[in-house]
Parts: sequence; structure tokens; C-alpha cells
Amino acid sequence: MAAAVQLLVVAAAAAMAAACCAGMAAAAAAVEVTWDVEYILWAPDCQQRVMIGINGRFPGPNITARAGDVISVTMNNKMHTEGVVIHWHGIRQFGTPWADGTASISQCAVNPGETFIYKFVADKPGTYFYHGHFGMQRAAGLYGSLIVLDSPEQPEPFRHQYDDGGELPMMLLSDWWHQNVYAQAAGLDGKDRHFEWIGEPQTILINGRGQFECTQGPTRKSFEKLLNENVETCVDDQKMCSDQEKCLRRSECGPYCPRSQCAPVVFNVEQGKTYRLRIASTTSLSLLNVKIQGHKMTVVEADGNHVEPFVVDDIDIYSGESYSVLLKADQKPASYWISVGVRGRHPKTVPALAILSYGNGNAAAPPLQLPAGEPPVTPAWNDTQRSKAFTYSIRARKDTNQPPPAAADRQIFLLNTQNLMDGRYRWSINNVSLTLPATPYLGAFHHGLQDSAFDASGELPAAFPGDYDVMRPPANNATTASDRVFRLRHGGVVDVVLQNANMLREEVSETHPWHLHGHDFWVLGYGDGRYDPAAHAAGLNAADPPLRNTAVVFPHG
Amino acid sequence: MAAAVQLLVVAAAAAMAAACCAGMAAAAAAVEVTWDVEYILWAPDCQQRVMIGINGRFPGPNITARAGDVISVTMNNKMHTEGVVIHWHGIRQFGTPWADGTASISQCAVNPGETFIYKFVADKPGTYFYHGHFGMQRAAGLYGSLIVLDSPEQPEPFRHQYDDGGELPMMLLSDWWHQNVYAQAAGLDGKDRHFEWIGEPQTILINGRGQFECTQGPTRKSFEKLLNENVETCVDDQKMCSDQEKCLRRSECGPYCPRSQCAPVVFNVEQGKTYRLRIASTTSLSLLNVKIQGHKMTVVEADGNHVEPFVVDDIDIYSGESYSVLLKADQKPASYWISVGVRGRHPKTVPALAILSYGNGNAAAPPLQLPAGEPPVTPAWNDTQRSKAFTYSIRARKDTNQPPPAAADRQIFLLNTQNLMDGRYRWSINNVSLTLPATPYLGAFHHGLQDSAFDASGELPAAFPGDYDVMRPPANNATTASDRVFRLRHGGVVDVVLQNANMLREEVSETHPWHLHGHDFWVLGYGDGRYDPAAHAAGLNAADPPLRNTAVVFPHG
Repeated sequence: MAAAVQLLVVAAAAAMAAACCAGMAAAAAAVEVTWDVEYILWAPDCQQRVMIGINGRFPGPNITARAGDVISVTMNNKMHTEGVVIHWHGIRQFGTPWADGTASISQCAVNPGETFIYKFVADKPGTYFYHGHFGMQRAAGLYGSLIVLDSPEQPEPFRHQYDDGGELPMMLLSDWWHQNVYAQAAGLDGKDRHFEWIGEPQTILINGRGQFECTQGPTRKSFEKLLNENVETCVDDQKMCSDQEKCLRRSECGPYCPRSQCAPVVFNVEQGKTYRLRIASTTSLSLLNVKIQGHKMTVVEADGNHVEPFVVDDIDIYSGESYSVLLKADQKPASYWISVGVRGRHPKTVPALAILSYGNGNAAAPPLQLPAGEPPVTPAWNDTQRSKAFTYSIRARKDTNQPPPAAADRQIFLLNTQNLMDGRYRWSINNVSLTLPATPYLGAFHHGLQDSAFDASGELPAAFPGDYDVMRPPANNATTASDRVFRLRHGGVVDVVLQNANMLREEVSETHPWHLHGHDFWVLGYGDGRYDPAAHAAGLNAADPPLRNTAVVFPHG
Repeated sequence: MAAAVQLLVVAAAAAMAAACCAGMAAAAAAVEVTWDVEYILWAPDCQQRVMIGINGRFPGPNITARAGDVISVTMNNKMHTEGVVIHWHGIRQFGTPWADGTASISQCAVNPGETFIYKFVADKPGTYFYHGHFGMQRAAGLYGSLIVLDSPEQPEPFRHQYDDGGELPMMLLSDWWHQNVYAQAAGLDGKDRHFEWIGEPQTILINGRGQFECTQGPTRKSFEKLLNENVETCVDDQKMCSDQEKCLRRSECGPYCPRSQCAPVVFNVEQGKTYRLRIASTTSLSLLNVKIQGHKMTVVEADGNHVEPFVVDDIDIYSGESYSVLLKADQKPASYWISVGVRGRHPKTVPALAILSYGNGNAAAPPLQLPAGEPPVTPAWNDTQRSKAFTYSIRARKDTNQPPPAAADRQIFLLNTQNLMDGRYRWSINNVSLTLPATPYLGAFHHGLQDSAFDASGELPAAFPGDYDVMRPPANNATTASDRVFRLRHGGVVDVVLQNANMLREEVSETHPWHLHGHDFWVLGYGDGRYDPAAHAAGLNAADPPLRNTAVVFPHG
């Protein structure tokens, strides 16, 4: 669904380009990196596959900048036949829309052998990530975390609530399939009876690491055993790798020595301190839930925006979202399980596990004390009410709240449906399925081709038929394809109503996260069933709606 | 090795472009096709993988044209992130070098979503094929056969030797790995200890079909059993597919009904008739040998050129080569095995099997009579003398022989070595490993960029050091990289000496086929050890050397 939303962005971003280019010169410092994007053989869940890595590793390198820094990434495409772009998820790219990294939207894909330099300002503190935005390259492993720290002069309002040195490594979550993305694409794009659903992911990855079939039931023993046994034998990288190769060929669990590709992630804390844990999700399919044994979390940030703090036992996270939570190491010194389970779909993927360790603060020091008891169980997958309750409780932080303008210039109603086009499944907005133009939208505007590079015969439909029954499969399941856009006035205020419909199957509607490039938006409210201005508009929150770049729309919501 | 040879081609082809463009207008007829190149899920050896298919199938459609026809292929790149080109192997592209389909040589790769039209004359009768020429796309399945028939007015000289209707389906051979090409590339390109050899192919494919682990030993029974049992249940395509899906998920052998993706190939003949069988190889690694139970073959064509007929029990075929053989159905009416075995490397891949059936001429009619006895055993893999004897016995056909000019304008000595560059294995010519330029050579010449689009500081070295010991691993195993070219005079005559050296390991040198684009060449002779003009030049065949587009260089030869 994200693709259709991009249309909004580009029209706005292009209009904005001329006005907003001054910021970069005033930037404080430079974060400059050079990345080779290339195929690598990697075993993210202890089974080796080909992935798209950066500088020979998966996930890509973490970027940490301070607000105002200029980030410059020189990206060399070292793949033999694939183009590539990288999107900086959550960065608004004020003044630099051409650095947004969306193929056919903000730029042409960078061809094999070519180099492209992304240069943009880390505009505000927050928890972000980056990922490939061409085909399914994100699912092939092309992603990494992007952290923008506050400046000492302008600290985040919750900065005083966690200790100095209390920034834990970011927890970047994803789902992983053993089948490669080319096969996934072929199956999903299959016509009629050649359609082949990829199924549920094999493994949930935490910071690119999982342990396929090694964390549940009888294999749990090997997980624990190997975790300790291998630690001491893995003192040098060379030996670790040869152990691992042998192990992979046996298709067994582990090894789980700290530097192996599928080692469990360990977060080290000291008793009594309060920590900030950043969590983000780049899943392809899965809604995840993070729960820490014996610990509560206080949510303080969402998508780079301040949230009125609230305490939770566990946290739902949809693809594209990010949060910061405060975590107090207030339990007895020991190790604790962190569970990351699947919600929203009947889970066939076992929860991922990580460890919160009250150690000596040294991540490499063996032996690692194992948690006692079972990993915490994340909430029932189909408890949608609980998910709604969590989402609804997110409010803008009172002392930094910037409420939205009182009125909007225009309204756009977007109906999200599953359709068929020429025998193939297509997701559509207002019965239009996005086809990308040969010339990127941004380039088309920049070069004055906005009347020829794509269908400029009119805007996309800004509403859907009044008699459409969102609670049932579409009466007419055919859809049309188009590369038309919405064009929004620069500085205008737009209300967007996202309406989730029933899928092609009876009585099925899935949760869909929507992400907007180039802007944050206020989430004014949620509702069930067909949007009814009379009933729903009154319940909107105009006082302290959270700013987000990703919003979830619940089934039939 | 083929890549380095292309340098020769382009320089010549570009020079030739202006002079040779008149042929197309006089062409007799048009063969026009439209191809969607896309990922497909396919089970070439009964195990499903993702492949690059054309119009939803693997291998790509057969093209059959008459000499002089204009072939026009409108190619739509439907892959999501990969560029693509298609090379017409053996077609000389007189007047149309831009249609040669070599990425970075004759054209830029065609980007995702784009269309490119290949238009060229089927210049002379013969046995050809086409394949992707970008990255490893050929190995991913992007290939098919291309047959140019003679015209009734200008029949091939052996036309009267086989019966009307005696053209058998072409036999296009390849080798197949279960690991996808992206993983293969990542392993082969791995630095230092990250290098990972892909190993021997899992299956040899005949016309894109093989039967993994189902043709040898105990599984041979299932091969035979299923071949017959399934024939009758597979009367319609729909049922066949559902059977097959079930079977694939069980990872069992078969089904082998005629229309399944991994059905054995059957060549139907009638007793007493003589047939023409075209054989070509598009393997990535394997030298293959074709042997037909109880039948001899008469070689009459090689790479689209006439060969003085000679009779063989079996035929070696290297990647890039093509042959036509005459096959007399002179045995008692029955079915006979066709074996395709690996030679030249210690075979870990079982021979592929096909069936020659003296049936009623109707391929679809069940039941199929199974051959009696064991499939014929192809010659020992390491009997290099036998391979040499076969290759040396190929001569130009006496009554159409066009001997080469008496003298050459210049000589080029090309030493083929295995080297290391920055910790990675690289094959090199005269210590230069090819790097492709961003601007294709042909475009560079066309647009007058031949002094800036690639390194034009000098020619590639046309010889190798006099003290280089071709029988031992390189004393200095480092290599340099370059995109320099040779520039040849249009119409000039060049002697090329291809010298095969020892690999990095002691006492190992492998057979290498070399293919030339845009031209056929005369194969004047072969020799063992270091080329010595005094000793070897005298033994060259100036009288009736065969014209080829692919030549094999034997170990240390």
C-alpha cells in the first residue's frame, strides 16, 4: 500500500524542491560513508542464502548522526544485473527530495556498476532506518538502522529520563523467508493458477539475526547448550567462520558465538540504570510484538516524534513504524528473555528471542548467563482490540505538542482493496493500481515533462463510490492501472481518510500500515467500518494527535 | 573466457557498421515475435526454482527462420530490478552490430519496464541459439534455440542426404544448479576465504528438461514406472499441472507425462528414414558427450558451417558449439536411449537421458515403449586424447571449402590464465582481466567517444612474456583490470594464437571453449604445450580448416 501513498509525496516534494534548498549549507557536521551494495552469502537464521548486503555484511552499517548533520552516502552498485536505490525511511528530505531513494519516484534506479551519492540533512532527532526501495530488495536484506541523536543544545524532552550511556543498540526487526525474493516475486505475480503465495516467514530477525527451528521445543536445548558451549571456542573470527560453515552444512542449530551471523542478540544493562531502547520494523508481512521478561516499557517516541509517555507490558510494531521506549533495569541481576512474536496473522513463525543481560556491561565476555524460565508469551495474534487499545493510546507529548491546523483545504478518501487485473492479484486505491512511469515523477517535474512523462490527463480519483460495501468482497473485482498523481498545493492542509475494505475472500480484511514519504502527518483518529463523517468526524482528536510517518489501518477500519 | 574475445569483435563490428547496412532491405521475409522476459517458477529437473523465462516458459521459444529472413524480436523486460539483453549466438550481425545483444559491448542493458527491439538478418543456414548476455542470466534459464533453414534455391550441400520431414527437434543442452545464480555469483566473487565454489551441476538438461536423482540406480525404476503410469493420467494440461504440483512438493521423481516441465525428451523417428539432428550446448561449465544407443551419427555442420562428413559413435560438444548430425533410423523398431554425459571434469552429475523412439510418429500417443538395456555409457571423462581426436577430425567440407587467405596482417597471442585480483579469482588474458565500461564500446564509437568512454591509452597487450611457463602456476598470480580493446583493420586478416596455461593449482589446466561474436574464424590447428612457431606453424592446416564461431583450447594447449 505504501507505493500509492508515494504519489502524494512526490507531487508535494517536487513543488517544494525550489523553495527548500538552503538548509544544507548551515548544517553542523558531516557523516560520510561509502557503501558497496553487493550479493553476499549469509546465514541470518543459521541457514545460508544469498542476500543483498552492504560492504560485505548484513544488515547494512548503522548510521548515527546528530540532528542537523549532513549525511552523505556514496553508494556503489556492485550487483551484476540489478539496479538499486536506498530510501531513508522517516527522513523528510526537506530541500533534497531527489535524495529520497525511491525508484521511478525520486530517481532512476542506479544501474549495475554505477555510483550515486545520497546527501541530505538529518533533520530531526529520532529513530529511523534505511532500505532498498526497488522491487523486493528490502526483503532481500538491503536495510539498516539510521539514528538521529539530539544535540546537547536541543535535547529531546525525555532525555533526562534515561542515564548517560543508556542508549541501547537499536532493535531493528524484520521477517525472513528462505525462498529468494525473485521466486517470491514470480509466485506473487503469477497469473491465475500460477499464483503462488509465499506463505508465512520462516524466521523473525532481530538486527538481522534469528535461529531457525532452534528456539522452540526440543531444539531449545541445543539453543541453550550451543550458546554457552561455543562461546569459548569462538575466540577468533577465522575459527568462528570455519565452525559455522561446518555447522551450516549440517543444517544444525548454531553456533551462537557472539560474532557468528546468527548469534542471538544480547542487550547489556547494569542494574538500577534506565535505558532508551529504539525499536523499528522493516517487515514485509508481519505485525510484531515485543515483550521483555519481567520489565515494563515507557513509550516516549514514535517515528521521530515525541509521544506523551505511557507504560506498556509489550509493544505492537507494524512495518515502517519506529518507537523509543525507556527501560528501567530494576530487576535482580540476571538475564531476561526478550520475545518478538507475530500478531495480526495466524502465526506459523515462532517468536524470535533476544536476551537482556544484567552483565558486567561487556558484550563479548563469556559465559553468558541464560535467562530462567520460559520466554514471555506475546499477546494472542487475533486480539485486535488489544492492538487497537495500544495504538489509540499514542498521543502527542503535552509539552511539545503542535496541534494541527483547525481546517483542511481538501479531503482525499483512499479505499484500499484487493483486486484482480488480467488474472493477477493487485492491491488498488480507489480502484487504481499503481504502475510506475519510465521517467521518475520528480525528474519529470524538474525537467518540465509533467504533462508527458506520465498520465497527466487528470488527477487520481480522490474518493470511491458511495455505494461501495467495505465489509464485503468487491462486487466488481477488476481494477485499472495508472501512473496518475494527486497534485497538492505547497503548504496546503489535506485530510486523508484511509479506508480498509474486505479482501477478495469473504469476511477477511487485513491490517495495513501506510507510510508517507517527505512528511509527517497527524493521526486524527481511527474508526471501524465505513467512514461516516457524521459519526466519525466528531470523534477526531484535534487536540493532541500524534505526528507519525506511518499509520496503521485496522481490518475494515 | 568469452568476454575477453568480445573486445576483438566490437572493434571490428563497429568499423563494419557503416559499410554493411544494405542487406536488410533485400530480405525475403519477416519473423516477428514479442517476448516478455520475466521470472517464472519452473521445475526443469522436477525441483521447482525461480528461473528467467520468456512468455512464461523455459526454455524460451524456438525461433525458426529461413536464410535471408529478417528476425525481429520485441523484448519487454518484465523483471522488477534486473536489466537484460539477449545475444544471438552465431549470428554474425553483418550491418547490425547493435543487435548483437551484449551488455556494455553492443548496448546498454535494457532496464526493467523497458522494451528493446532486436532486428537482424538470419544471414546463413545453420544451428544457433540465443541467450542472456548480462551477468549470469543465461545460467538462470534465459536461452532458446535459433534455427536458420536453407532456402530451396540454395540448399545446404547435405540436404539431399536426409529425408523430407527428417528435421528432428533441435537438442539444446545445458547444465543446471539448484542454487540460484545470485548465490552462485556471490560465492564465485567472494574474497579470500569467502570464495565459495558452486560445485558441479545438479542436472544436465536436454531442451530444458532433466530428472534430478531419478535416472540412476534404484530410482531408475521410478523413472521407468512413472514414465508409463503417468502418461494416461495426463491428458489435459490442467490435470497434469495439479499432479505435478503435488509431486514437486513431495520431491519425488516425475511425473513424466509428455507435457510436464521435467518430462524426458522423446525424438520420434520412422524406421528406414534418415534424420538431421541439431545439437547445441549452452552449458556454464560442462563439456558434454552425446551418445545414442545402437546408432552412429554423421557430422555435417558445425556452428553454421559445412563440415566434411565423418561418422562417429558419440559426439563431444563444448559450450557455445553447435553441430548437425545425420542419423539413420536403421535399427529394429523400438526405443533407444540417448545419453548425455559429462566429460573433461570428474563427473559428479549423472548423465541426462532422452529417448529415440521408432513410434508411429505421433509424440503424444501413449504408451511410450521403453528402451531395452542400459543407457549407453559416454566415454571416460579424462580421455582427453579421444576428445582431441574428435576435434581434430573436423574439416571444412570439400565441395564448399573456402580456404583462408595465405597470409595474415598481424598476429595476436592470447594467454589464458587464472589469477587473483584483490583476493578474488579472476581469469585474465595476457594478465589483463576485463572490466566493462559504463558506456558500451559500440555506442562509444558511434558517438565519437572512443577516446574517453574507455581506456584508450593503448591497445591491449598482443602477446605475453616470452619467459612465461604455461605448464606451471603463474609465478606472479596478480592481474590487472582494463577495458582497453584491440582495434583491427576492417577487412584485415588476423592470426590469433590462443594459449591455455596452468591454473593456480599445480598441474591443473582446464579445457576452455572460446567464442567470437560477429565473425566466423578458421581453426588452423591445435597443439600441446607452449606455442612454438617453429614447431607448430608448419603443422597448420591451410587447406581445409573448418570455419567456426567457437573453438576449444585443450589443457596446456
